[in-house]
Amino acid sequence: MTLPLTPVITAFERSPDRGRGLARDMRVRWALEEVGQPYEVRLVSFWAMKEPAHRALHPFGQIPTYEEGALALFESGAIVFHIAERHAGLLPDDAHARARAIAWIFAALNTVEPPILDLQTTKFLEGDKTWYEQRLPIVKDRIRDRLGELSARLGSADWLDGAFSAGDLMMVAVLLRLKASGLLDEYPNILAYVARGEARPAYKRAFDAQLAVFAGKPPTG
Amino acid sequence: MTLPLTPVITAFERSPDRGRGLARDMRVRWALEEVGQPYEVRLVSFWAMKEPAHRALHPFGQIPTYEEGALALFESGAIVFHIAERHAGLLPDDAHARARAIAWIFAALNTVEPPILDLQTTKFLEGDKTWYEQRLPIVKDRIRDRLGELSARLGSADWLDGAFSAGDLMMVAVLLRLKASGLLDEYPNILAYVARGEARPAYKRAFDAQLAVFAGKPPTG
Repeated sequence: MTLPLTPVITAFERSPDRGRGLARDMRVRWALEEVGQPYEVRLVSFWAMKEPAHRALHPFGQIPTYEEGALALFESGAIVFHIAERHAGLLPDDAHARARAIAWIFAALNTVEPPILDLQTTKFLEGDKTWYEQRLPIVKDRIRDRLGELSARLGSADWLDGAFSAGDLMMVAVLLRLKASGLLDEYPNILAYVARGEARPAYKRAFDAQLAVFAGKPPTG
Repeated sequence: MTLPLTPVITAFERSPDRGRGLARDMRVRWALEEVGQPYEVRLVSFWAMKEPAHRALHPFGQIPTYEEGALALFESGAIVFHIAERHAGLLPDDAHARARAIAWIFAALNTVEPPILDLQTTKFLEGDKTWYEQRLPIVKDRIRDRLGELSARLGSADWLDGAFSAGDLMMVAVLLRLKASGLLDEYPNILAYVARGEARPAYKRAFDAQLAVFAGKPPTG
Protein backbone atom coordinates (compact mmCIF):
# COMPACT_ATOMS: atom_id res chain seq x y z
CA MET A 1 0.00 0.00 0.00
CA THR A 2 1.32 3.45 -0.88
CA LEU A 3 0.55 6.49 1.20
CA PRO A 4 -1.84 9.01 -0.37
CA LEU A 5 0.08 11.82 -1.99
CA THR A 6 -0.72 15.41 -1.16
CA PRO A 7 -0.55 17.44 -4.36
CA VAL A 8 1.66 20.52 -4.39
CA ILE A 9 0.67 23.51 -6.50
CA THR A 10 2.56 26.72 -7.22
CA ALA A 11 1.20 30.26 -6.83
CA PHE A 12 2.60 33.80 -7.05
CA GLU A 13 4.66 34.85 -4.04
CA ARG A 14 3.28 38.35 -4.62
CA SER A 15 0.13 38.19 -6.68
CA PRO A 16 -0.17 41.04 -9.22
CA ASP A 17 -3.94 41.15 -8.56
CA ARG A 18 -3.34 41.95 -4.86
CA GLY A 19 -5.33 38.96 -3.63
CA ARG A 20 -8.44 39.45 -5.76
CA GLY A 21 -8.31 35.77 -6.74
CA LEU A 22 -7.74 36.36 -10.46
CA ALA A 23 -4.46 34.47 -10.81
CA ARG A 24 -4.74 31.03 -12.34
CA ASP A 25 -3.83 29.15 -9.14
CA MET A 26 -7.33 30.14 -7.94
CA ARG A 27 -8.92 27.74 -10.46
CA VAL A 28 -6.87 24.85 -9.18
CA ARG A 29 -7.44 25.74 -5.52
CA TRP A 30 -11.19 25.96 -6.20
CA ALA A 31 -11.26 22.55 -7.93
CA LEU A 32 -9.31 20.95 -5.08
CA GLU A 33 -11.70 22.47 -2.53
CA GLU A 34 -14.76 21.28 -4.51
CA VAL A 35 -13.56 17.67 -4.34
CA GLY A 36 -12.20 17.94 -0.78
CA GLN A 37 -8.59 17.18 -1.68
CA PRO A 38 -6.04 18.78 0.71
CA TYR A 39 -3.07 20.39 -1.03
CA GLU A 40 0.13 22.26 -0.37
CA VAL A 41 1.25 25.49 -1.98
CA ARG A 42 4.75 26.49 -2.96
CA LEU A 43 5.07 30.22 -3.58
CA VAL A 44 7.22 31.35 -6.50
CA SER A 45 8.70 34.79 -7.09
CA PHE A 46 8.55 36.47 -10.52
CA TRP A 47 12.27 35.94 -10.73
CA ALA A 48 12.18 32.23 -9.85
CA MET A 49 9.28 31.64 -12.27
CA LYS A 50 11.61 32.30 -15.20
CA GLU A 51 14.48 30.16 -13.90
CA PRO A 52 15.32 26.67 -15.24
CA ALA A 53 14.08 24.86 -12.11
CA HIS A 54 10.56 26.24 -12.52
CA ARG A 55 10.63 26.02 -16.32
CA ALA A 56 11.28 22.30 -15.98
CA LEU A 57 7.79 22.17 -14.45
CA HIS A 58 6.24 24.90 -16.62
CA PRO A 59 7.84 25.49 -20.04
CA PHE A 60 6.21 28.94 -20.30
CA GLY A 61 7.43 30.10 -16.90
CA GLN A 62 4.04 30.66 -15.32
CA ILE A 63 1.91 29.45 -12.44
CA PRO A 64 0.15 27.21 -11.51
CA THR A 65 1.93 23.89 -11.67
CA TYR A 66 0.75 20.67 -10.05
CA GLU A 67 2.93 17.93 -8.60
CA GLU A 68 1.58 14.65 -7.35
CA GLY A 69 4.31 12.12 -6.71
CA ALA A 70 6.08 11.55 -10.02
CA LEU A 71 3.44 13.44 -12.02
CA ALA A 72 4.10 17.08 -12.89
CA LEU A 73 1.50 19.11 -14.80
CA PHE A 74 1.10 22.68 -16.01
CA GLU A 75 -1.84 24.63 -17.56
CA SER A 76 -4.78 25.37 -15.27
CA GLY A 77 -7.18 23.66 -17.72
CA ALA A 78 -5.20 20.42 -17.66
CA ILE A 79 -4.81 20.49 -13.88
CA VAL A 80 -8.50 21.15 -13.23
CA PHE A 81 -9.41 18.37 -15.67
CA HIS A 82 -6.96 15.99 -13.99
CA ILE A 83 -8.54 16.71 -10.59
CA ALA A 84 -12.05 16.39 -12.05
CA GLU A 85 -11.22 13.07 -13.66
CA ARG A 86 -9.88 11.52 -10.46
CA HIS A 87 -12.47 12.72 -7.97
CA ALA A 88 -16.27 12.76 -7.90
CA GLY A 89 -18.11 16.07 -8.05
CA LEU A 90 -16.77 18.05 -11.01
CA LEU A 91 -17.79 15.95 -14.03
CA PRO A 92 -21.12 14.18 -14.64
CA ASP A 93 -21.19 10.36 -14.71
CA ASP A 94 -23.19 10.25 -17.95
CA ALA A 95 -20.71 10.01 -20.86
CA HIS A 96 -22.44 12.61 -23.06
CA ALA A 97 -22.92 15.10 -20.23
CA ARG A 98 -19.26 14.58 -19.26
CA ALA A 99 -18.08 15.33 -22.82
CA ARG A 100 -20.22 18.50 -22.87
CA ALA A 101 -18.82 19.66 -19.52
CA ILE A 102 -15.31 19.22 -20.96
CA ALA A 103 -16.40 21.29 -23.98
CA TRP A 104 -17.27 24.13 -21.61
CA ILE A 105 -13.79 23.96 -20.05
CA PHE A 106 -12.30 24.42 -23.51
CA ALA A 107 -14.84 27.12 -24.41
CA ALA A 108 -13.89 29.08 -21.29
CA LEU A 109 -10.18 28.87 -22.09
CA ASN A 110 -10.06 29.09 -25.87
CA THR A 111 -13.13 31.14 -26.84
CA VAL A 112 -14.07 33.34 -23.86
CA GLU A 113 -10.76 34.00 -22.11
CA PRO A 114 -8.61 35.28 -25.04
CA PRO A 115 -10.58 38.50 -25.69
CA ILE A 116 -10.92 39.05 -21.93
CA LEU A 117 -7.21 38.63 -21.40
CA ASP A 118 -6.59 41.05 -24.27
CA LEU A 119 -8.16 43.80 -22.14
CA GLN A 120 -5.47 43.26 -19.50
CA THR A 121 -2.62 42.63 -21.93
CA THR A 122 -3.36 45.78 -23.92
CA LYS A 123 -3.41 47.88 -20.75
CA PHE A 124 -0.12 46.38 -19.61
CA LEU A 125 1.72 46.54 -22.95
CA GLU A 126 0.01 49.50 -24.65
CA GLY A 127 -1.42 51.58 -21.81
CA ASP A 128 1.08 54.35 -22.53
CA LYS A 129 0.58 54.35 -26.33
CA THR A 130 -1.23 57.10 -28.21
CA TRP A 131 -3.75 54.63 -29.61
CA TYR A 132 -4.70 52.97 -26.33
CA GLU A 133 -7.94 54.88 -25.70
CA GLN A 134 -9.06 54.52 -29.32
CA ARG A 135 -8.38 50.78 -29.33
CA LEU A 136 -10.22 50.07 -26.10
CA PRO A 137 -13.75 50.06 -27.60
CA ILE A 138 -12.65 47.48 -30.21
CA VAL A 139 -11.28 45.21 -27.50
CA LYS A 140 -14.39 45.65 -25.35
CA ASP A 141 -16.76 44.96 -28.25
CA ARG A 142 -15.03 41.64 -28.91
CA ILE A 143 -15.68 40.73 -25.28
CA ARG A 144 -19.31 41.86 -25.59
CA ASP A 145 -19.76 39.55 -28.59
CA ARG A 146 -18.74 36.58 -26.47
CA LEU A 147 -20.72 37.67 -23.41
CA GLY A 148 -23.85 38.17 -25.51
CA GLU A 149 -23.55 34.67 -26.92
CA LEU A 150 -22.85 33.17 -23.52
CA SER A 151 -25.77 35.06 -22.01
CA ALA A 152 -28.10 33.77 -24.74
CA ARG A 153 -27.04 30.18 -24.11
CA LEU A 154 -27.20 30.42 -20.32
CA GLY A 155 -30.69 31.96 -20.32
CA SER A 156 -32.30 31.52 -16.93
CA ALA A 157 -30.36 28.36 -16.03
CA ASP A 158 -28.24 28.16 -12.91
CA TRP A 159 -25.31 26.49 -14.68
CA LEU A 160 -24.26 25.97 -18.31
CA ASP A 161 -25.39 22.35 -18.70
CA GLY A 162 -27.33 20.81 -15.83
CA ALA A 163 -25.50 20.54 -12.52
CA PHE A 164 -22.41 22.60 -11.61
CA SER A 165 -19.32 21.13 -13.32
CA ALA A 166 -15.66 21.84 -13.99
CA GLY A 167 -16.95 23.70 -17.08
CA ASP A 168 -18.78 26.18 -14.86
CA LEU A 169 -15.80 26.44 -12.53
CA MET A 170 -13.56 27.44 -15.42
CA MET A 171 -16.09 29.77 -17.04
CA VAL A 172 -16.77 31.62 -13.77
CA ALA A 173 -13.02 31.88 -13.08
CA VAL A 174 -12.49 33.40 -16.53
CA LEU A 175 -15.44 35.80 -16.25
CA LEU A 176 -14.27 37.04 -12.84
CA ARG A 177 -11.39 38.75 -14.66
CA LEU A 178 -14.01 41.18 -15.99
CA LYS A 179 -15.43 42.16 -12.63
CA ALA A 180 -13.58 45.47 -12.36
CA SER A 181 -14.34 46.44 -15.98
CA GLY A 182 -18.08 46.80 -15.43
CA LEU A 183 -18.76 44.77 -18.60
CA LEU A 184 -20.49 41.98 -16.68
CA ASP A 185 -23.11 44.48 -15.46
CA GLU A 186 -24.49 44.61 -19.02
CA TYR A 187 -25.51 40.94 -18.77
CA PRO A 188 -27.58 40.37 -15.60
CA ASN A 189 -27.84 36.61 -16.03
CA ILE A 190 -24.05 36.30 -16.37
CA LEU A 191 -23.60 38.54 -13.34
CA ALA A 192 -25.88 36.23 -11.34
CA TYR A 193 -24.08 33.16 -12.73
CA VAL A 194 -20.72 34.48 -11.56
CA ALA A 195 -22.21 35.36 -8.17
CA ARG A 196 -23.51 31.79 -7.84
CA GLY A 197 -19.98 30.54 -8.43
CA GLU A 198 -18.51 32.92 -5.87
CA ALA A 199 -21.14 31.85 -3.33
CA ARG A 200 -20.02 28.22 -3.35
CA PRO A 201 -18.31 27.27 -0.08
CA ALA A 202 -15.41 25.69 -2.01
CA TYR A 203 -14.85 28.95 -3.91
CA LYS A 204 -14.83 30.90 -0.66
CA ARG A 205 -12.30 28.58 0.96
CA ALA A 206 -10.04 28.82 -2.10
CA PHE A 207 -10.41 32.60 -2.22
CA ASP A 208 -9.56 33.00 1.45
CA ALA A 209 -6.49 30.77 1.05
CA GLN A 210 -5.06 32.85 -1.80
CA LEU A 211 -5.95 36.10 -0.02
CA ALA A 212 -4.05 34.92 3.06
CA VAL A 213 -0.89 34.68 0.93
CA PHE A 214 -1.31 38.25 -0.19
CA ALA A 215 -2.24 39.58 3.25
CA GLY A 216 0.81 37.91 4.77
CA LYS A 217 3.17 39.46 2.24
CA PRO A 218 2.18 43.00 1.32
CA PRO A 219 3.67 44.03 -2.04
CA THR A 220 6.33 46.68 -2.07
CA GLY A 221 5.26 47.98 -5.49
CA MET B 1 -26.45 -4.44 -31.07
CA THR B 2 -26.49 -0.85 -32.29
CA LEU B 3 -24.99 0.19 -35.59
CA PRO B 4 -21.74 2.16 -35.39
CA LEU B 5 -22.43 5.87 -35.75
CA THR B 6 -20.56 7.92 -38.31
CA PRO B 7 -19.72 11.27 -36.73
CA VAL B 8 -20.77 14.41 -38.58
CA ILE B 9 -18.64 17.53 -38.31
CA THR B 10 -19.25 21.03 -39.63
CA ALA B 11 -16.84 23.12 -41.70
CA PHE B 12 -16.95 26.43 -43.56
CA GLU B 13 -18.82 26.32 -46.87
CA ARG B 14 -16.29 28.87 -48.12
CA SER B 15 -13.18 28.81 -45.98
CA PRO B 16 -11.71 32.27 -45.36
CA ASP B 17 -8.21 30.77 -45.60
CA ARG B 18 -8.86 29.59 -49.16
CA GLY B 19 -8.11 25.93 -48.42
CA ARG B 20 -4.82 26.42 -46.56
CA GLY B 21 -6.07 24.15 -43.79
CA LEU B 22 -6.05 26.79 -41.05
CA ALA B 23 -9.72 26.61 -40.07
CA ARG B 24 -10.46 24.67 -36.91
CA ASP B 25 -12.27 21.80 -38.67
CA MET B 26 -8.79 20.75 -39.85
CA ARG B 27 -7.82 19.72 -36.31
CA VAL B 28 -10.85 17.48 -36.02
CA ARG B 29 -10.39 16.00 -39.52
CA TRP B 30 -6.74 15.29 -38.67
CA ALA B 31 -7.62 13.55 -35.39
CA LEU B 32 -10.29 11.44 -37.12
CA GLU B 33 -7.79 10.46 -39.82
CA GLU B 34 -5.13 9.56 -37.22
CA VAL B 35 -7.47 7.07 -35.56
CA GLY B 36 -9.01 5.83 -38.81
CA GLN B 37 -12.55 6.95 -38.02
CA PRO B 38 -14.64 7.76 -41.13
CA TYR B 39 -16.71 10.92 -40.84
CA GLU B 40 -19.16 13.09 -42.73
CA VAL B 41 -18.95 16.83 -43.22
CA ARG B 42 -21.82 19.30 -43.30
CA LEU B 43 -20.81 22.64 -44.80
CA VAL B 44 -22.15 25.79 -43.17
CA SER B 45 -22.33 29.28 -44.69
CA PHE B 46 -21.29 32.35 -42.70
CA TRP B 47 -24.93 33.30 -42.61
CA ALA B 48 -26.17 29.93 -41.35
CA MET B 49 -23.41 29.80 -38.72
CA LYS B 50 -25.05 32.66 -36.83
CA GLU B 51 -28.60 31.27 -37.07
CA PRO B 52 -30.42 29.56 -34.16
CA ALA B 53 -30.17 26.06 -35.69
CA HIS B 54 -26.37 26.18 -35.72
CA ARG B 55 -26.14 28.07 -32.44
CA ALA B 56 -28.02 25.21 -30.80
CA LEU B 57 -24.94 23.13 -31.67
CA HIS B 58 -22.37 25.89 -31.13
CA PRO B 59 -23.32 28.72 -28.75
CA PHE B 60 -20.63 30.98 -30.23
CA GLY B 61 -21.73 30.47 -33.85
CA GLN B 62 -18.50 28.93 -35.11
CA ILE B 63 -17.23 25.73 -36.66
CA PRO B 64 -16.42 22.91 -36.06
CA THR B 65 -19.16 21.02 -34.32
CA TYR B 66 -19.28 17.26 -33.83
CA GLU B 67 -22.39 15.09 -33.79
CA GLU B 68 -22.34 11.42 -32.94
CA GLY B 69 -25.81 10.03 -32.40
CA ALA B 70 -27.33 11.96 -29.50
CA LEU B 71 -24.03 13.61 -28.56
CA ALA B 72 -23.33 17.12 -29.86
CA LEU B 73 -20.04 18.85 -29.07
CA PHE B 74 -18.34 22.13 -29.94
CA GLU B 75 -14.80 23.49 -29.40
CA SER B 76 -12.02 21.85 -31.41
CA GLY B 77 -10.09 21.03 -28.22
CA ALA B 78 -13.03 19.17 -26.72
CA ILE B 79 -13.76 17.32 -29.96
CA VAL B 80 -10.15 16.24 -30.49
CA PHE B 81 -9.97 15.11 -26.87
CA HIS B 82 -13.24 13.17 -27.24
CA ILE B 83 -11.85 11.38 -30.30
CA ALA B 84 -8.52 10.74 -28.57
CA GLU B 85 -10.24 9.31 -25.51
CA ARG B 86 -12.33 6.83 -27.49
CA HIS B 87 -9.76 5.55 -29.98
CA ALA B 88 -6.19 4.28 -29.66
CA GLY B 89 -3.36 6.33 -31.12
CA LEU B 90 -3.67 9.89 -29.84
CA LEU B 91 -3.09 9.54 -26.09
CA PRO B 92 -0.50 7.38 -24.28
CA ASP B 93 -1.70 4.45 -22.17
CA ASP B 94 0.46 5.43 -19.20
CA ALA B 95 -1.65 7.62 -16.89
CA HIS B 96 1.05 10.23 -16.26
CA ALA B 97 2.04 10.50 -19.92
CA ARG B 98 -1.65 10.78 -20.81
CA ALA B 99 -2.15 13.68 -18.36
CA ARG B 100 0.92 15.43 -19.79
CA ALA B 101 -0.34 15.01 -23.38
CA ILE B 102 -3.63 16.62 -22.30
CA ALA B 103 -1.62 19.47 -20.75
CA TRP B 104 -0.09 20.13 -24.18
CA ILE B 105 -3.57 20.31 -25.75
CA PHE B 106 -4.46 23.02 -23.24
CA ALA B 107 -1.09 24.75 -23.68
CA ALA B 108 -1.63 24.92 -27.45
CA LEU B 109 -5.10 26.41 -27.04
CA ASN B 110 -4.75 28.66 -24.00
CA THR B 111 -1.10 29.73 -23.98
CA VAL B 112 0.21 29.53 -27.56
CA GLU B 113 -2.84 30.22 -29.72
CA PRO B 114 -4.14 33.48 -28.15
CA PRO B 115 -1.15 35.68 -29.16
CA ILE B 116 -1.03 33.96 -32.57
CA LEU B 117 -4.70 34.60 -33.16
CA ASP B 118 -4.18 38.22 -32.13
CA LEU B 119 -2.02 38.68 -35.22
CA GLN B 120 -4.98 37.75 -37.42
CA THR B 121 -7.60 39.52 -35.34
CA THR B 122 -5.67 42.77 -35.28
CA LYS B 123 -5.23 42.67 -39.06
CA PHE B 124 -8.94 42.00 -39.54
CA LEU B 125 -10.27 44.53 -37.02
CA GLU B 126 -7.51 47.17 -37.01
CA GLY B 127 -5.75 46.79 -40.37
CA ASP B 128 -7.10 50.17 -41.49
CA LYS B 129 -6.25 52.02 -38.28
CA THR B 130 -3.45 54.56 -38.01
CA TRP B 131 -1.77 52.56 -35.25
CA TYR B 132 -1.77 49.19 -37.01
CA GLU B 133 1.84 49.25 -38.22
CA GLN B 134 3.14 50.55 -34.89
CA ARG B 135 1.26 47.89 -32.95
CA LEU B 136 2.41 44.97 -35.07
CA PRO B 137 5.88 44.60 -33.46
CA ILE B 138 4.25 44.37 -30.01
CA VAL B 139 1.93 41.61 -31.19
CA LYS B 140 4.78 39.75 -32.90
CA ASP B 141 7.06 39.99 -29.87
CA ARG B 142 4.40 38.36 -27.71
CA ILE B 143 4.33 35.48 -30.18
CA ARG B 144 8.15 35.31 -30.17
CA ASP B 145 8.11 34.98 -26.38
CA ARG B 146 5.94 31.88 -26.66
CA LEU B 147 7.85 30.42 -29.60
CA GLY B 148 11.16 30.88 -27.80
CA GLU B 149 9.86 29.05 -24.76
CA LEU B 150 8.35 26.28 -26.87
CA SER B 151 11.58 25.96 -28.85
CA ALA B 152 13.60 25.64 -25.64
CA ARG B 153 11.35 22.88 -24.34
CA LEU B 154 11.20 20.98 -27.63
CA GLY B 155 14.98 21.00 -28.11
CA SER B 156 16.00 18.29 -30.55
CA ALA B 157 13.05 16.01 -29.81
CA ASP B 158 10.64 14.91 -32.52
CA TRP B 159 7.54 15.55 -30.43
CA LEU B 160 6.74 17.43 -27.23
CA ASP B 161 6.63 14.47 -24.84
CA GLY B 162 7.67 11.09 -26.24
CA ALA B 163 5.51 9.71 -29.04
CA PHE B 164 3.21 11.84 -31.21
CA SER B 165 0.00 12.66 -29.32
CA ALA B 166 -3.13 14.78 -29.49
CA GLY B 167 -0.99 17.46 -27.78
CA ASP B 168 1.34 17.58 -30.78
CA LEU B 169 -1.61 17.53 -33.18
CA MET B 170 -3.10 20.58 -31.52
CA MET B 171 0.22 22.41 -31.16
CA VAL B 172 1.15 21.88 -34.82
CA ALA B 173 -2.33 22.96 -35.92
CA VAL B 174 -1.99 26.17 -33.89
CA LEU B 175 1.55 26.88 -35.12
CA LEU B 176 0.52 26.41 -38.75
CA ARG B 177 -1.43 29.67 -38.45
CA LEU B 178 1.98 31.40 -38.36
CA LYS B 179 3.30 29.88 -41.57
CA ALA B 180 2.63 32.92 -43.77
CA SER B 181 4.04 35.35 -41.18
CA GLY B 182 7.62 34.08 -41.44
CA LEU B 183 7.89 33.99 -37.65
CA LEU B 184 8.40 30.21 -37.57
CA ASP B 185 11.56 30.63 -39.66
CA GLU B 186 13.26 32.18 -36.63
CA TYR B 187 12.97 28.84 -34.76
CA PRO B 188 14.40 26.02 -36.90
CA ASN B 189 13.43 23.26 -34.49
CA ILE B 190 9.82 24.47 -34.42
CA LEU B 191 9.80 24.72 -38.20
CA ALA B 192 10.99 21.10 -38.42
CA TYR B 193 8.42 20.07 -35.79
CA VAL B 194 5.58 21.59 -37.81
CA ALA B 195 6.92 19.94 -40.98
CA ARG B 196 6.92 16.56 -39.18
CA GLY B 197 3.27 17.09 -38.38
CA GLU B 198 2.42 18.05 -41.96
CA ALA B 199 4.27 14.98 -43.26
CA ARG B 200 2.01 12.56 -41.39
CA PRO B 201 -0.24 10.63 -43.79
CA ALA B 202 -3.29 11.42 -41.63
CA TYR B 203 -2.52 15.14 -41.84
CA LYS B 204 -2.24 14.92 -45.61
CA ARG B 205 -5.54 13.10 -45.97
CA ALA B 206 -7.26 15.70 -43.78
CA PHE B 207 -5.63 18.57 -45.66
CA ASP B 208 -6.68 17.18 -49.03
CA ALA B 209 -10.24 16.70 -47.81
CA GLN B 210 -10.62 20.32 -46.71
CA LEU B 211 -8.87 21.58 -49.84
CA ALA B 212 -11.36 19.66 -51.98
CA VAL B 213 -14.17 21.67 -50.37
CA PHE B 214 -12.48 24.91 -51.31
CA ALA B 215 -11.51 23.77 -54.82
CA GLY B 216 -15.08 22.67 -55.50
CA LYS B 217 -16.52 26.00 -54.47
CA PRO B 218 -14.36 28.93 -55.52
CA PRO B 219 -15.09 32.01 -53.39
CA THR B 220 -16.72 34.98 -55.03
CA GLY B 221 -14.96 37.47 -52.70
